[in-house]
Parts: sequence; C-alpha cells; structure tokens
Amino acid sequence: MNYEQLFSLIKQKKSFLCVGLDTDIDKIPDFLQKDEDPVFAFNKAIVDATLPFAVAYKPNLAFYEANGAAGWNSLQKTIKYIRSLKQPIFLIADAKRGDIGNTSAMYAKTFFEQMDFDAVTLSPYMGFDTIEPFLKYPGKWSILLALTSNSSASDFQMFENKTGKKLFEEVLEQTRSHANKNQLMYVVGATKAKALLDIRKIVPEHFLLVPGVGAQGGSLQEVAKYGLNKSCGLLVNSSRGIIYASSKTDFAEAAGHKAKEIQTEMMQILKINNLL
Amino acid sequence: MNYEQLFSLIKQKKSFLCVGLDTDIDKIPDFLQKDEDPVFAFNKAIVDATLPFAVAYKPNLAFYEANGAAGWNSLQKTIKYIRSLKQPIFLIADAKRGDIGNTSAMYAKTFFEQMDFDAVTLSPYMGFDTIEPFLKYPGKWSILLALTSNSSASDFQMFENKTGKKLFEEVLEQTRSHANKNQLMYVVGATKAKALLDIRKIVPEHFLLVPGVGAQGGSLQEVAKYGLNKSCGLLVNSSRGIIYASSKTDFAEAAGHKAKEIQTEMMQILKINNLL
Repeated sequence: MNYEQLFSLIKQKKSFLCVGLDTDIDKIPDFLQKDEDPVFAFNKAIVDATLPFAVAYKPNLAFYEANGAAGWNSLQKTIKYIRSLKQPIFLIADAKRGDIGNTSAMYAKTFFEQMDFDAVTLSPYMGFDTIEPFLKYPGKWSILLALTSNSSASDFQMFENKTGKKLFEEVLEQTRSHANKNQLMYVVGATKAKALLDIRKIVPEHFLLVPGVGAQGGSLQEVAKYGLNKSCGLLVNSSRGIIYASSKTDFAEAAGHKAKEIQTEMMQILKINNLL
Repeated sequence: MNYEQLFSLIKQKKSFLCVGLDTDIDKIPDFLQKDEDPVFAFNKAIVDATLPFAVAYKPNLAFYEANGAAGWNSLQKTIKYIRSLKQPIFLIADAKRGDIGNTSAMYAKTFFEQMDFDAVTLSPYMGFDTIEPFLKYPGKWSILLALTSNSSASDFQMFENKTGKKLFEEVLEQTRSHANKNQLMYVVGATKAKALLDIRKIVPEHFLLVPGVGAQGGSLQEVAKYGLNKSCGLLVNSSRGIIYASSKTDFAEAAGHKAKEIQTEMMQILKINNLL
C-alpha cells in the first residue's frame, strides 16, 4: 500500500483509526479461555466487530511473545485471518525493532515475508543502516519512533544540541531525506499533541502513527488539531480502550461500539477539515 | 547471577567469551537440514563444542523469529538444553526491546519467566520507564545499548548537547544511578574500542557487553586495553566468527577450536592484568 492508497482507504472508511491488538491472555473473557487458541478467538471477534470502523490493526509483538511459540501461532493466524477477509487494511507489526544490518534483514524477512504485514515499528537509536533493510521491500513501510507517549520519553528524546534541536527532531530531519513518504512514517504519542505543531514543520507530508489516545490519556481532538495534513496524515491508535471495553460475553460488541464512536468523531474531524 | 558470581565464572573459565547464537537456517550445514529441528541440532552441537571456553551465550532473537513459531521452539529448546547441562552460564536474549511500561512488562515475562534467560538487551530510546519492568526481577540483568558497533551508530548516538556531551554518554550517566552494577550492563561495540576509555570514566564498575569482534572487525586486544576493570567487567561476543568457522561436517569442531583460540587469548589478557 502506498501513501495515496492509504489516504484513499481513510476516505473510503471515513476513519483514521488503528486498533491495537495488544491481546493479553490474562484479560481475555473467561468463556473464551476454553478455546483451543483463546488469543486468536479473541482477535477474530474483535476484528469482525471493528473492521467497518478501522483502517489499520496493530498487534504489539510483546503480547504474543509472552506466550512463546503458541503466541507466535496466534499472531500468524490473526494476520492470515485478516488477509482472508480480502478487504484493504493496513497491518502494523508493533515490534520496535532495530539491530545491525544483517540482523535487521532477518526481522524484515519475518514481518514482510513470513507474515504479510504492511509496516513495522522501529527504534532509531542504532541509526539509519538498521532501518535500510526494511525499506528494500516496495510497498512496505517503516514506522520510526520519534516522540513517544510514555512519561520517560523525555529522558533522551528531548536531549538538546547547542542550537536547541532535540534528538527526536534530529531523527525526523535525518531520516526524512533517506526514505520517501510512501515508505516511512513516524510514531508521535498523543500525549504530546502540541509537539505535533513543530513536528509538522519538519515532516509536513509524512504519515504519523499516534498511540496514546484513550487509556494513556491523549485527546483525539488535540491530535487532529495539530497533526492533520492535506492527506489526513494520521493513524490514531487505540488499544485497551477498544479491545477491553467489556470483559464479559459482549466484549466484541462493546469493542465495535467503542470503535464506531471513535470513527464517528473521526468522520466529523475529516469533514470539518474538508478531507471527505 | 550477580556481579560477583559473574566475575567468579570468568575466573573459573579463564574466559570472558560470549558466543553469539545467531543461527541462520540458510547457513546451517546441509547434512543437518534433514534433522527435525536443524536450528536446535546446530545450536546443541555448537554449545557442546564451545561450553568449556565460554561464560555466556547470546541468541539474537531475529534469527529465531524469522522462522516463526518453529523458530521460537528452537530457541526455547536451546535455552532448556543449556540449562539442563547444570553448569553456571550467563544467557543473554539479544532482543533490543524497549516499549511503554505495560508492554515492557510482557517482554520481561517472556525472557525471564517463559524462558530462563539471565539478561536481555534493551534500547534506551524510550527512556527509563521502559527499562524498569526488567529490573524488578532480582538476579536478572538489563543490557542497555550505549555505543553500538554498526557504521550508522553515530547518526544519533553521537548527537551532542551544548556542553559536548554525546547522547550515549547521557544514556550512561542517567541510567547508572537508576540500577546497580548487579542488574545493569551496557552494549559497547568493539569497533569503538578507544571510546571505552571515556566510557570507563562514566561507568568504571559496570559490565560491558562488547559485540563486533571478528566478522565486524573489532580487536580483542584493543577492547581489553581500554575496557577491562578490576572485575574484568567485559563480556566479549563473537558470533559468525565462531559458529560459521566451518560450513562442513566439522562445523562444531571448528567452532570449538575457534572458541578455544579466543579463550586462550583471553586467559593471557586476564593473567597479564592480574585478574587470575
């Protein structure tokens, strides 16, 4: 999927919602625990309920790896199931990887060949040669951590050089020239909404993946106000707020309601900004 | 394993060698490919041949994840096998993870509960709260990326503030006070050996994990010259140089020879420095 196709998908669905599939086996409703693969059963139900309202899904690898080989199987089955629905959808492996070249190439193979993800999140700490192997796959995206949503984000991301430039700004400036807007986007936490104003000066066109709305306290209106561009340019993620909207038998229905609620707000935002 | 126990192990084995189990299924000798689990069969043979000369093993997760659930199984079997030998050995998950708190906690569970690793490598980009969940396991270690061995390491790790302090130095300074030398070490690439001199001024006591000797061109003598401290303070990793020393039926024997060669050099270094 390229930049224009992603924007088309957003217009078609009137949504820029990414649903975070951070499926913790301990938080899955009791009645599903009897299932042969509770994590997959949960994900399938969540996807079925939220697909009309979402343009992207983002499983965080940690939640699958915590279950070992079985967890890896649940993840593969989830991706296969979503692809089997034959609907355009953007799939993000939230892996935050980053390693030396030959190792990064192995990770790229994992997410882009072994599993059919569209994108993978990457940590920039080790520099550009750790990102390059991912960019060799046409139509596939790298999503670089820039300014994250957690409270310790400022420990190093705000480290400033003598001209007042912060590390996350240096990350944006250096990398934007290495890859075009069709293959590169950035993570900017919703809890840092006002920083989007400055970030848009550095990367006016690139898509931004924005986690932190909902459970982490970020505001969708604020994010849209400072982050939208001419092609929407935003994927806003909600994980816990949607997938754990109810812990009972109606969990999927509740997730669908919550996703629809966010999508409705997003549709209004897109309309007000003449993007629909 | 704590700091003193790790130093004892080094003295006992007269070695500070870490063998990198970066097992690429495409590089495993042909005759092993018929095995039910070629990656595990390869690792088992490598461990059997190198265990007398090594104090640590470090599988890089990328090489296992590239094989999906099967790869995860190979990794679990490898760790289980090494532990079944009932010899003191330091096991490092080279994962370079780093995520928000609740997600980092899942990764910690994976590496410290699901698998019996002693340590995991972590990326500092997202700050200290991403490291904290790993430190909650007594006797388990976090190994933070500081100055890595790849050529793009300087892209961001050398980013300088107005007093001339570099990002990797800021990482060392900020984190050394958050965790003691029994639970925290740092990755410093062997290709940056001279930087060890300055790094030792900031973290004189902490252990350093040093990859990049061998295939990546780093020198053991240089690393020892600038990096040794009173408790050795170094784990030097070699991956490709050992595990792919031969691609024929004698691969394990060749790996053993190569490991012994490095261990012999390390023993001399330890003696010269009055550490034995």
